[in-house]
Amino acid sequence: MRLSRYFLPVLKETPAEAQIASHRLMLRAGMIKQASAGIYSWLPLGFKVLKKIEQIVHEEQQRAGHIPMLMPTLQSAELWRESGRYDAYGPEMLRIRDRHDRDMLYGPTNEEMITDIFRSHVTSYKDLPLTLYHIQWKFRDEVRPRFGVMRGREFYMKDGYNFDLTKEDALHAYNRHLVSYLRSYERMGLQAIPMRADGGPIGGDYTHEFLVLAETGESEVFYDSEITDLRFGDREIDYDSVEQCQAVLEEFTSRYARTDETHDEAVFAEVPEERRRTARGIEVGQIFYFGTKYSEAMGAVVSTAEGERVPVHMGSHGIGVSRLLGAIIEASHDENGIIWPEGVTPFHCGIVNLRQGDSDCDAACERLEQALIAKGLDPLYDDREERAGAKFATMDLIGLPWRITVGPRGLKTGVVELTNRRTGESEEMSLEAAIDRIGQIYSV
Amino acid sequence: MRLSRYFLPVLKETPAEAQIASHRLMLRAGMIKQASAGIYSWLPLGFKVLKKIEQIVHEEQQRAGHIPMLMPTLQSAELWRESGRYDAYGPEMLRIRDRHDRDMLYGPTNEEMITDIFRSHVTSYKDLPLTLYHIQWKFRDEVRPRFGVMRGREFYMKDGYNFDLTKEDALHAYNRHLVSYLRSYERMGLQAIPMRADGGPIGGDYTHEFLVLAETGESEVFYDSEITDLRFGDREIDYDSVEQCQAVLEEFTSRYARTDETHDEAVFAEVPEERRRTARGIEVGQIFYFGTKYSEAMGAVVSTAEGERVPVHMGSHGIGVSRLLGAIIEASHDENGIIWPEGVTPFHCGIVNLRQGDSDCDAACERLEQALIAKGLDPLYDDREERAGAKFATMDLIGLPWRITVGPRGLKTGVVELTNRRTGESEEMSLEAAIDRIGQIYSV
Repeated sequence: MRLSRYFLPVLKETPAEAQIASHRLMLRAGMIKQASAGIYSWLPLGFKVLKKIEQIVHEEQQRAGHIPMLMPTLQSAELWRESGRYDAYGPEMLRIRDRHDRDMLYGPTNEEMITDIFRSHVTSYKDLPLTLYHIQWKFRDEVRPRFGVMRGREFYMKDGYNFDLTKEDALHAYNRHLVSYLRSYERMGLQAIPMRADGGPIGGDYTHEFLVLAETGESEVFYDSEITDLRFGDREIDYDSVEQCQAVLEEFTSRYARTDETHDEAVFAEVPEERRRTARGIEVGQIFYFGTKYSEAMGAVVSTAEGERVPVHMGSHGIGVSRLLGAIIEASHDENGIIWPEGVTPFHCGIVNLRQGDSDCDAACERLEQALIAKGLDPLYDDREERAGAKFATMDLIGLPWRITVGPRGLKTGVVELTNRRTGESEEMSLEAAIDRIGQIYSV
Repeated sequence: MRLSRYFLPVLKETPAEAQIASHRLMLRAGMIKQASAGIYSWLPLGFKVLKKIEQIVHEEQQRAGHIPMLMPTLQSAELWRESGRYDAYGPEMLRIRDRHDRDMLYGPTNEEMITDIFRSHVTSYKDLPLTLYHIQWKFRDEVRPRFGVMRGREFYMKDGYNFDLTKEDALHAYNRHLVSYLRSYERMGLQAIPMRADGGPIGGDYTHEFLVLAETGESEVFYDSEITDLRFGDREIDYDSVEQCQAVLEEFTSRYARTDETHDEAVFAEVPEERRRTARGIEVGQIFYFGTKYSEAMGAVVSTAEGERVPVHMGSHGIGVSRLLGAIIEASHDENGIIWPEGVTPFHCGIVNLRQGDSDCDAACERLEQALIAKGLDPLYDDREERAGAKFATMDLIGLPWRITVGPRGLKTGVVELTNRRTGESEEMSLEAAIDRIGQIYSV
């Protein structure tokens, strides 16, 4: 993409309303624009990152054998009356009346709707196990939306639902989700720690939240420092294997790690003192096993091999897709701007032309751009007539992990400069070497 | 995908509520489930097609130089009061009040919001031309939703907006959209004819609708039969070239083609009688040039090279993404089910195992499946223990364009059967030849 043809409205001033780094940086980098309280438009740069994160979630869910679908944003109140949650859910549920005076609502979650789909179509144990998920806009009418996309009202979320014959099977689904979530977050360059949590309005006493450590986190967390040494890494896993998934769960949840909701000082005291940590964390996902809570209330039953009719065991599993942009930025930025992990960067690298209009510089930049595109990469070429300082400031602000700088002096000796956004380190090399290096970084 | 692990709830009975073929077939093929009046869940098969169509729209919009972003579903009433449309829009606008009693609405379209984004960030002619688009859920509270996704209330739509300094530039943007739409529809296997139309509530006297001819279309259309011979085909086009885009517009709009809203008997009578046609059509898109209607009302002005401040010229351009599934099925089905064009098929081909459990048949099917996946294709392997007839009926119903049938008799002589869904023609060939043929069909 040529920057001269793109829409990247960066702001010079720090917006007064933004209290935390991610909100400030997303506004300054031209990623979002507030439409109304807690509701944002995703400008082109923000939209690109949102799609990258969504794509990782899709890939990892499908790798785990979960099946994508899509439920609508608006729901009928009827289903929520069946489960008893229509009255139980507070003013955070946005209630709507349509032109025929029917009670509707903007879905904050989808347990009822997916249970209705299940009971309408599945009647036999033979069709189990089944895990369906979708990524859809949801709404929670927060009384005081803040922190940009971190606590917005309209937000994008992946929510998945498993249906199993037995509690044992459902706990395998739970473990599968834990594994797939660990993989997803790591691909986004994040360490998200599963912590024992509270069921809240979804219900269920078997639940973990995934938290990213960050000073601006809304939750206080307590953990054994050994847990931050764990990595899922690129190990292969067979998602059908109960043992393999269970082993990952045990590895990642056997050390103390809890939010303030479930924190227990007595148990925490058993952790050796030098490993006890208190910090703040941002919640980026949660998994639940809640048994037959919804299937019993709503009649989602299947016949067993013996002909018995039993309610299915269920769980639900959420990843906050739009919120993750904020969490990633909170975990990865400096005073000059965002530092995108390679897995979610909106453009793979930036190309800065130090002398736009100079025929050698222009030709070299175009060659670079074309060669990277030919490799399937997506570079952002700053072809504006701007000072070098302004171009560097923009690249630093929007946080592309790699920058190639092309100037007349370097070209005389046949080199360009490759700069790492995170370390600030630069290296001179030939145009071809820079193309190869970027290709290696992204394994293309 | 193995059918035994998929969620494909096909219906044996024809649902009573469905009046037209596409609605019936989408329900029967397990593509959608009604959540409430005019609001649908997209079951896995339907979701896959929806995503294929969305992807084609994204690719063709970006090929034309248009920039993707995303606006929220809920909008504040304030912007609509500025344009004067809050009161003008009838009961089809879903009005919502949030917990702080602020007037909101579920966006039926986005002229106001995009104009607000534009005026907040763009002040100079140097940043023009600019075309932004998004694909987002919208809501129109139809008094009598019907025909499934063809006239739903919550629907998925691409809407794009161009901002230009002059009327001339804006008309080039108009032409660019016309070209990109022609390409998009053809990739979906559809012939959509641009017809002179009426501006309606969007406004503007320069507008074309794109109509797919189908008996169940809601519009009566009148056209010169020569127009159905036109194909965009695989010609290369430079979207920056005013001449090239203008030439396509002239080629595709110079013959008589109008909806009942703009039909003129006197002009139609000038078409030679043997070429005059009357038919019904389904609207699948519309493009508008409306000049400074919104930019003047909302103060979207830029400074010119001479330092003058002028309102920008705008247009908007919509493709009904969710509605297209219905339109494609109306245009392409038979008594046994859907016939997907290759460009949008949910799976590239089906694999039918005639004797599940037979080790040779199972091994051959698995080899087929793996070889197709290795080519980057996405086959659906019916590995259920079902009669051949039931498997064929399912494949015909869900409409995969190609089916490979593997049975013990054929395997004895080393052949499988490749069947074309549209023609019903079958051909025997080796496993390897079938893999190659499918690869050729999809150019992989």
